[in-house]
Amino acid sequence: MLTSTPFPKSFASDNHAGVHPAVMAAVTEANTGDAPAYGGDRWTRETEDAFRAEFGDRATVYPMFNGTGANVVGLSLLLRPYDAVLCPVSAHINTSEGGAPERLLGTKLVPLATEDGKISAEDVRGQLSALGNVQHSQPRVVSISQATECGTCYTADEVAELAEFVHAHGLFLHMDGARLANAAAGLGCSLRALTTDAGVDVLSFGGTKNGAMGAEAIVILNPELDASALFLRKQAMQLASKMRFVSVQLAALLAGELWRENAAQANAMARRLAEGVTGLPGVSLRYPVQSNSVFPVLPEKAIAELQQRYLFHVWDAEERVVRWVTSFDTTAEHIDAFLADIRLAVQAATDA
Amino acid sequence: MLTSTPFPKSFASDNHAGVHPAVMAAVTEANTGDAPAYGGDRWTRETEDAFRAEFGDRATVYPMFNGTGANVVGLSLLLRPYDAVLCPVSAHINTSEGGAPERLLGTKLVPLATEDGKISAEDVRGQLSALGNVQHSQPRVVSISQATECGTCYTADEVAELAEFVHAHGLFLHMDGARLANAAAGLGCSLRALTTDAGVDVLSFGGTKNGAMGAEAIVILNPELDASALFLRKQAMQLASKMRFVSVQLAALLAGELWRENAAQANAMARRLAEGVTGLPGVSLRYPVQSNSVFPVLPEKAIAELQQRYLFHVWDAEERVVRWVTSFDTTAEHIDAFLADIRLAVQAATDA
Amino acid sequence: MLTSTPFPKSFASDNHAGVHPAVMAAVTEANTGDAPAYGGDRWTRETEDAFRAEFGDRATVYPMFNGTGANVVGLSLLLRPYDAVLCPVSAHINTSEGGAPERLLGTKLVPLATEDGKISAEDVRGQLSALGNVQHSQPRVVSISQATECGTCYTADEVAELAEFVHAHGLFLHMDGARLANAAAGLGCSLRALTTDAGVDVLSFGGTKNGAMGAEAIVILNPELDASALFLRKQAMQLASKMRFVSVQLAALLAGELWRENAAQANAMARRLAEGVTGLPGVSLRYPVQSNSVFPVLPEKAIAELQQRYLFHVWDAEERVVRWVTSFDTTAEHIDAFLADIRLAVQAATDA
Amino acid sequence: MLTSTPFPKSFASDNHAGVHPAVMAAVTEANTGDAPAYGGDRWTRETEDAFRAEFGDRATVYPMFNGTGANVVGLSLLLRPYDAVLCPVSAHINTSEGGAPERLLGTKLVPLATEDGKISAEDVRGQLSALGNVQHSQPRVVSISQATECGTCYTADEVAELAEFVHAHGLFLHMDGARLANAAAGLGCSLRALTTDAGVDVLSFGGTKNGAMGAEAIVILNPELDASALFLRKQAMQLASKMRFVSVQLAALLAGELWRENAAQANAMARRLAEGVTGLPGVSLRYPVQSNSVFPVLPEKAIAELQQRYLFHVWDAEERVVRWVTSFDTTAEHIDAFLADIRLAVQAATDA
Repeated sequence: MLTSTPFPKSFASDNHAGVHPAVMAAVTEANTGDAPAYGGDRWTRETEDAFRAEFGDRATVYPMFNGTGANVVGLSLLLRPYDAVLCPVSAHINTSEGGAPERLLGTKLVPLATEDGKISAEDVRGQLSALGNVQHSQPRVVSISQATECGTCYTADEVAELAEFVHAHGLFLHMDGARLANAAAGLGCSLRALTTDAGVDVLSFGGTKNGAMGAEAIVILNPELDASALFLRKQAMQLASKMRFVSVQLAALLAGELWRENAAQANAMARRLAEGVTGLPGVSLRYPVQSNSVFPVLPEKAIAELQQRYLFHVWDAEERVVRWVTSFDTTAEHIDAFLADIRLAVQAATDA
Repeated sequence: MLTSTPFPKSFASDNHAGVHPAVMAAVTEANTGDAPAYGGDRWTRETEDAFRAEFGDRATVYPMFNGTGANVVGLSLLLRPYDAVLCPVSAHINTSEGGAPERLLGTKLVPLATEDGKISAEDVRGQLSALGNVQHSQPRVVSISQATECGTCYTADEVAELAEFVHAHGLFLHMDGARLANAAAGLGCSLRALTTDAGVDVLSFGGTKNGAMGAEAIVILNPELDASALFLRKQAMQLASKMRFVSVQLAALLAGELWRENAAQANAMARRLAEGVTGLPGVSLRYPVQSNSVFPVLPEKAIAELQQRYLFHVWDAEERVVRWVTSFDTTAEHIDAFLADIRLAVQAATDA
Repeated sequence: MLTSTPFPKSFASDNHAGVHPAVMAAVTEANTGDAPAYGGDRWTRETEDAFRAEFGDRATVYPMFNGTGANVVGLSLLLRPYDAVLCPVSAHINTSEGGAPERLLGTKLVPLATEDGKISAEDVRGQLSALGNVQHSQPRVVSISQATECGTCYTADEVAELAEFVHAHGLFLHMDGARLANAAAGLGCSLRALTTDAGVDVLSFGGTKNGAMGAEAIVILNPELDASALFLRKQAMQLASKMRFVSVQLAALLAGELWRENAAQANAMARRLAEGVTGLPGVSLRYPVQSNSVFPVLPEKAIAELQQRYLFHVWDAEERVVRWVTSFDTTAEHIDAFLADIRLAVQAATDA
Repeated sequence: MLTSTPFPKSFASDNHAGVHPAVMAAVTEANTGDAPAYGGDRWTRETEDAFRAEFGDRATVYPMFNGTGANVVGLSLLLRPYDAVLCPVSAHINTSEGGAPERLLGTKLVPLATEDGKISAEDVRGQLSALGNVQHSQPRVVSISQATECGTCYTADEVAELAEFVHAHGLFLHMDGARLANAAAGLGCSLRALTTDAGVDVLSFGGTKNGAMGAEAIVILNPELDASALFLRKQAMQLASKMRFVSVQLAALLAGELWRENAAQANAMARRLAEGVTGLPGVSLRYPVQSNSVFPVLPEKAIAELQQRYLFHVWDAEERVVRWVTSFDTTAEHIDAFLADIRLAVQAATDA
């Protein structure tokens, strides 16, 4: 029998967490008087400045409601009607956006096999024979997630190498950065090092999983791609009328690198959790822990037992892999209580 | 020379206003602990209950980010690939959604001529000869705005008559209710009287213009249409991960009929403004004032003079019609100060 | 009582006619041995040469199956996702293509009022205020039909004037030339005078209504627009595998100006028909007869009587306008027999 | 040095062949007088009768221009906006239709790994966990090719087993039958045994590769799916105006089982070719030869040498697999001449 009360802290997703107090304060403070709608307000101007400070002078930012919106609008800047997007089979755009990319972009997603959520130039090279062949969708964009859906991260060098290859063949590099903060915190580098400086063309910048209420953005790093973004965001139903309340969330995360603080806490808690289960009988880690998620292989009975008390997803039922995600407000107490229950559950499963 | 400081209160749109304090309080209070994402939280459950109380036991509600999203997802419930939507030429879906309905639904919009933003069964009847003809998009949905983009309102009887006609011919009735609250407040009736009871199939319920931060919803009143809504909202990129913060905004507006209080204030201020300009030389009203907007015809020089100090849109440059919109936080002082400047500007234009 | 047997010659459409013998001979002769598929054959090369000879050295041609395909692919060369096509309300793309442009292009069609199927620069000017406004679909293409669906024609000067205006505002001019041959024959000019020389960017060239079995094409006259056509045709399902049998139909029509001979015959028969009904009691012509269709206003009873024996469409039931279309194989005997019956039917209707 | 003249008979595709004389005769004979357009003609009626005789009384047929059109329209009958199509990774819809399914249907294709172009119920089962999960495109259709793109065939029992599984889970079974005739001829059974009787819901019936000029069709075998087909074909730009010339091609292939004669000849020539290369040094067959294509593994130098004289495609450059396709008019002389050159090329490559 587990010791905790049911559902004390969710390990299902970093979007089960609430809003960081500084973000909520920014939202509240922006509620003063009238402001032009659709981004014509001063808070959005300041947010744009903050993004330029972070990503470079030529970066432009377009706040959006959610990650699917950011990914779809960002990709729409890069695609002709007959193009394909190459991405890892595990990519969020491929698995978890309800088919939005295909329906709203009309594009083919070409899923590439991957061990750990990451792909390399070699994986891309295998698809390039389609170029110029009218029977085939034309490879145009390579989309990677940073951190990946497996919790792994590309180093800045790995991103740069991929970008160089991609550009050499006339393609673009798109990054789904729903958890970019976790990657940068984990790698100990700036956001810019992993994006602008590495050659990313268009970035989906994630705020929600990092402590925002609901705020994502596309950041256009290749300035030649900016012309249509205003129109494409509007048409994609991602243009907020009272935009100031979205913009200030992003600004709050950038201010004083709050994003790093939030991500570092989540990452540290994931490591604490991973270390805590290391060595338990029948337990192993499916992927290295490089950001804020842990993918342990557990005894089947332990999974069932733990799901009575804790919210988390089964990642691969057949292989008995589950996913635990930590967030900016996960504490050492949360982890330690969870670990105590995990040990009991594993013990019980092993004894049985 | 006008007497006021520049841009003291915007008359450009009700989405230039901020957030009603009760809505902001609800958002802040929802920020407590973890909650399942994507609508699996208790606040969303309570919001669903509140909508059923308002719109009837069989109504289902799906919170969304914005009005374009609500309109597109709502229409998507009703359309086969080869269908057309009949709507007034002035409809927001036709004029102001960046072509989202055509791109995301792939549907044809058939614009119907209208004097005042309203259409009748007779206007629809003229399009029905297309039914069954494979060369033509098939009329399937009639979409009306309540209040209309011209500030006029359909009475409950007018909606019911149109619904009856539409249903008799196998079509559906969709209502863009971005300003439904203003219509109901203006007509002195319940939300339900204008929707469920009048035969509307799917409603876009507007919160943002009524004092929310950013919250709209589709309300499905014809229960046969509910099966796909969850999937269609997700695919349309309108599924909020931390949905509680959207849901509570809607709940706050429904609680104690705050929506009516907000709308009534805006409507009263529009009437005060309309009455204040009545009788001024060279000034007339283009449409009757039935909700929270006023469309006066003004001397050209007065328009130019007023736009130095006030935010508002020119509706029809050739006809010298402008649009003034009031909101929940527009006060009698705002109106009276504006009227003083209007009188000066009109006087100056007339003297010239 | 009418004197003819039922349905002796159809006046419903020029696609009720069969195939011109020279076209059929070309199809039969192309059936010799193997040939590369998808347009890699020598007949297609020769067809391309023939189109360059007709439309100028920089013209490129892409054979297609049907007119809807040609219009959709042609427009797809010109449109960004958020663009609109301005066209007369009577345009085939707006009324008779089953909503294909909206669904397959995702574009908004903006229908312009028209008296006789033609539009002018002034009609377009009224829509240009949308340019740059993110709320609105962006006017990008003006599409005209030549001859129009009302049987009227633009002179070369009228096309050139429209093209100049359109280009001056950064838009493109598209021509639906399903009956271009009829227009050129009627105006006594070359195909090139009405298209390349007048500034048309992309043309849908019609073969089927001119005596082909089933062959249309897009002709790209603005060479900057050619890059994507091969891919867009393939994706739009308009790429014939055994393309030689489509290409030779088009080549046969161009050879020795067979297109002009066919169109001139059809036009002459339309004039003979129009002249024959002129002066009959209660009969008038809705539009001037400038190509191969006649739109008479007839007594209601005469319409009903004639439809017992002849295939033709009612164009406007309320106004008692019908449409009679002639084709390459309509003869004077066909017309005179029809006229005899028309006189009887009109007489009977008038007597009644 | 090879002995033949260059390109004497193409082995690149069965659509490099011309038109069977009986098909051409049918086309020529249909060119008599006027006929209603868009399928309202008597030849199309007779073609519909012929398909009912072949596929059962409840089958309905819709002639189309090409295979991509047939696949896209056929699938469109089966899909809601948020659905996915499961198909082998090698499926023509996945590899060779220019992304038309994604763009025109907006659907996700989920490619399933396959050894030989065939998939089983087990392959489908692995995708069914997505059902009901709003984050995922919903599996709705399983699409198989018969014969497959690898030249292999499903037995009637295999189709039936898959159909039963698919239906048991609420999905539909779609068959791309571009080479259905080759499969039926190879298996020695009726078309109906592999389709209607086996539980296929919608079939793409291929005529072009079987000796037609350009004629494919969808055959709806599940009568509940018929309601929208007329509209969807029109909108998908696959509605021929002079349809009789498409319909008669299909009727000619069905008459007296000409389809079987044509397919049997092609299949026999493929077997003769396969047998002729069996035992050559360094040569093996990648897939069993069950229809009209052969996929040999050849020495690299032999491939290069043969491509100087013969048209055929390299299927997998790395694995040295090429594809040879035979057609209705491939003769034993063609094969024997080709085999002579193959032996020389292989010998030379082996000696080197």
